[in-house]
Amino acid sequence: MTTPAVKMMMVYVTTPSKEVAMTLARTTVAEALVACANVIPGVTSVYQWKGKIEEDQEHVVILKTVESKVEELSSRVRSLHPAETPCFVAVPIDKISSDFGEWIVNSTKATNTQ
Amino acid sequence: MTTPAVKMMMVYVTTPSKEVAMTLARTTVAEALVACANVIPGVTSVYQWKGKIEEDQEHVVILKTVESKVEELSSRVRSLHPAETPCFVAVPIDKISSDFGEWIVNSTKATNTQ
Amino acid sequence: MTTPAVKMMMVYVTTPSKEVAMTLARTTVAEALVACANVIPGVTSVYQWKGKIEEDQEHVVILKTVESKVEELSSRVRSLHPAETPCFVAVPIDKISSDFGEWIVNSTKATNTQ
Repeated sequence: MTTPAVKMMMVYVTTPSKEVAMTLARTTVAEALVACANVIPGVTSVYQWKGKIEEDQEHVVILKTVESKVEELSSRVRSLHPAETPCFVAVPIDKISSDFGEWIVNSTKATNTQ
Repeated sequence: MTTPAVKMMMVYVTTPSKEVAMTLARTTVAEALVACANVIPGVTSVYQWKGKIEEDQEHVVILKTVESKVEELSSRVRSLHPAETPCFVAVPIDKISSDFGEWIVNSTKATNTQ
Repeated sequence: MTTPAVKMMMVYVTTPSKEVAMTLARTTVAEALVACANVIPGVTSVYQWKGKIEEDQEHVVILKTVESKVEELSSRVRSLHPAETPCFVAVPIDKISSDFGEWIVNSTKATNTQ
């Protein structure tokens, strides 16, 4: 367990379907923009749009990566996402198990082998 | 993609039912205390109470807002939540896509139009 | 609502089954390594392993605790987890409702009464 030497983040993205969620997860992993993705199904989103409360069924995608990839990841998510303004927020990882941290660093260095 | 100029947070709340979760999501969105809410169903909570391990079925509510609303949000959640000591924790947003960040700022400025 | 005087964290762990998730939740609560655990079912994980994209069904466990317990928690999770390199990442809690914060501090002080 360690404070990561290379800054790392968990990125939280909402998507309108399982298909979009899985495409986003598989593509960003394959392109080594993230080390791994977790897709959470069955999420209900609530927000206000033009003065009305809207509710959507969504899948949340949680992506783990190094901070230096977050900018490029953000562009890639936007290109794969059908929404005009996708929810893309990143929270800092303060502590991580050492070997898992190393794995994130190595996985995001890799060139795409797909 | 940017480091938000206005400090923003993801707030994590647990609730005992879908009804409480949705009331909390709809009310805080309608009152512009948060820009959006995501409700995650089917969560099992484990904790210790008076020396016994308890397990409850819960819905998690994740709320995205500006830091300046968190105090008021906390009071509102408490008023809507049946528990004496609801789980209310906020984690910092370090990076956000620029337009989504602007949308959060604007959505939490809005007066309630409901 | 307050900035916690004692530093606190949300720890995010992925597990390969409900059984592992619940054992991990119950054990770390019983041993006062965490105040509470939330188990999220039905999560699909995507990652790259030896040049291939892999997909697993997982349960996410979210643990709330004081920072001073995270090192020991990390070792305990490793001893209970079947993976060689479990996902164990901790994000900081910046704000918390005062009484819930106190409850976390007290719950992680308690000796195991099980």
